[in-house]
Amino acid sequence: MHEKTADARLAIGASELDADLYYLTRFRAPDAFVYIEVGGRSTLLMSDLEIDRARTQARVDEVLSLSAYEEKAKQQNITGAPAGLGAVLALLQERGAKSVEVPSGFAVRSADFLRDQGLDLSYPEGAYVVERELKSESEIDHIREVQQATEDAMDVALTALRQADVEDGVLVTDGRPLTAEDIKKGIALLLLDRGITAKNTIVACGDQACDPHNEGSGPLCADQPIVIDIFPRSDETGYYADITRTVIKGEPTKKQVALYKTVLEAQMSALDHIAAGVDGKEIHDAVNDRFIAAGFETGEVDGRMQGFFHGTGHGLGLEIHEPPRITRSSQTLKAGHVVTVEPGLYYPGLGGVRIEDLVVVTENGCENLTRYPKEFQL
Amino acid sequence: MHEKTADARLAIGASELDADLYYLTRFRAPDAFVYIEVGGRSTLLMSDLEIDRARTQARVDEVLSLSAYEEKAKQQNITGAPAGLGAVLALLQERGAKSVEVPSGFAVRSADFLRDQGLDLSYPEGAYVVERELKSESEIDHIREVQQATEDAMDVALTALRQADVEDGVLVTDGRPLTAEDIKKGIALLLLDRGITAKNTIVACGDQACDPHNEGSGPLCADQPIVIDIFPRSDETGYYADITRTVIKGEPTKKQVALYKTVLEAQMSALDHIAAGVDGKEIHDAVNDRFIAAGFETGEVDGRMQGFFHGTGHGLGLEIHEPPRITRSSQTLKAGHVVTVEPGLYYPGLGGVRIEDLVVVTENGCENLTRYPKEFQL
Repeated sequence: MHEKTADARLAIGASELDADLYYLTRFRAPDAFVYIEVGGRSTLLMSDLEIDRARTQARVDEVLSLSAYEEKAKQQNITGAPAGLGAVLALLQERGAKSVEVPSGFAVRSADFLRDQGLDLSYPEGAYVVERELKSESEIDHIREVQQATEDAMDVALTALRQADVEDGVLVTDGRPLTAEDIKKGIALLLLDRGITAKNTIVACGDQACDPHNEGSGPLCADQPIVIDIFPRSDETGYYADITRTVIKGEPTKKQVALYKTVLEAQMSALDHIAAGVDGKEIHDAVNDRFIAAGFETGEVDGRMQGFFHGTGHGLGLEIHEPPRITRSSQTLKAGHVVTVEPGLYYPGLGGVRIEDLVVVTENGCENLTRYPKEFQL
Repeated sequence: MHEKTADARLAIGASELDADLYYLTRFRAPDAFVYIEVGGRSTLLMSDLEIDRARTQARVDEVLSLSAYEEKAKQQNITGAPAGLGAVLALLQERGAKSVEVPSGFAVRSADFLRDQGLDLSYPEGAYVVERELKSESEIDHIREVQQATEDAMDVALTALRQADVEDGVLVTDGRPLTAEDIKKGIALLLLDRGITAKNTIVACGDQACDPHNEGSGPLCADQPIVIDIFPRSDETGYYADITRTVIKGEPTKKQVALYKTVLEAQMSALDHIAAGVDGKEIHDAVNDRFIAAGFETGEVDGRMQGFFHGTGHGLGLEIHEPPRITRSSQTLKAGHVVTVEPGLYYPGLGGVRIEDLVVVTENGCENLTRYPKEFQL
């Protein structure tokens, strides 16, 4: 818990998009609402549309009417406020709050208004809800549940690839080319059936995978690595999972085998070194060193990045990317962090390989939430 | 187009979540990136991970390396900057920009940093990308395409309800209760097959529908209104659609018929009055007046809102809710606005009725993008 020196905490946002607000309230809403905490008491200001649902569902101490406080603001001649901010000011004044802590991403227009009204506004340099970084047992259970379904989805994908035929270098099923879109649909359907939404799933073959965020499209080819990265979210709990496997249908070249083996060994070594107290930078640097030692260089070639040019891992929870990162910046891992471990190498002409597991950092190592095997050649 | 007095425009965000950034760049990324416009020239600062994909996909004049500008910032001894802001400052200085326009929702911490560095920071009171409000022909085509698929999904839902049997007041299919979850899954599956993602679909029966954002759950009952509200998004284009129908399986009471008829007539009348130059407030007030004249009052009863307590409609595009609103605040409709028209009435014990079409405002009226019939009793 971080020190709270301000009289009040204030956050405004749509909890569908704002993980902090969802974490603080466990209430999901598509439109912005107001969260205020004074003296440990949490209060929501809600529109008429959402107020009854919030009173039933939100885990806060009280839910007050936004329109009632807008009326109070009017009576107090508070004018020129951005939408809803008059009500916020009226409530803060009623509670005697003169200083307020907001997230560092708080809207500048709202911040300027509150400062103009004499409030002392501050924000933390880092996370607003620091508690989010360390996952509770029940949060880990939520993530584990999504991860298991995601592995089942991976299995649907790899089974489809296994069962495909190869004709003229292209994968074929039922007499027509098997596409990245087909595989993504199979993944999404299985997850949908489990109440999980998969978005932006990557099924990228050959050079497509060399842009690590290229989602992939079109017919899948034999003898080229196919990167499959699935990171869906539970509709019910809001938690994410994340897994990547790279496979090849057909006969890999020696160079492709070396590429895969190098990434796999780097990943296994990174997994071995993760533990509370370890600096993520050390893990990332070690991955880098291994790649260079194996002859896989990183840098710009012909105006394009190749090699290893993303982080080794990232925290995950109510957001797909959240602190901590395992990257070139120092960040100490703690027990309760849930992080991905996903080194990758990408070379146009050769293809991309990324292998990703999801783990919980523990005092002495990590618990791998991922059981799915790592097999290159199908 | 709004007047641009600042030397530069600056926006920072993840275009997956930030519709302005997606509109400005047509590039979708899950992590924050930087958009800068100086003298009509648009520039992105991108991470090593995304730079090649951005160079291929983003509709901007240039894509520069974030890490290269971070290096420049270091050389210029710019310190204490929030992530990425050192690079932003280095680029703004390089381009000679002394004043910068940001969105009103720009992060306060970043704003404070830029102001501390001597930049004159301003923001519009309203939208940052005002062009988004008026839809082009191709945008309307995108929305129409999603709306048509959404109507097909509505038909899947109503067909399932029609085909269900009624046993002891509960809808039954294949010998087991038909649930809200079953209907939502059928909707999601059809849309998934069209490359469209449905989230938070509402299938709310009886009193569940009296909280208009309650998504509904459990067995569906006969003789009670069922509100079905589908507002999915195209994975490919990013545009939304939106439709609501209310149906009843079984025999409605006279009161239920009156409720439905009142909402339908108010909706038809609102549709008749929509045209460029009309104030949305007039339309909303007219709906309200009709409801009161028909004896359907709005207000808090037993600590809970009932009657008509949401807006009559909202703009829609790359966001599900965007300007303009058709509500109690004045807002003049313009040709090219795409808005929903969705009055509703909600009374615990009686149930809820909402009927929603999606229209394009034209000079002399509106083009209704919704063809799906409005039928109460199945």
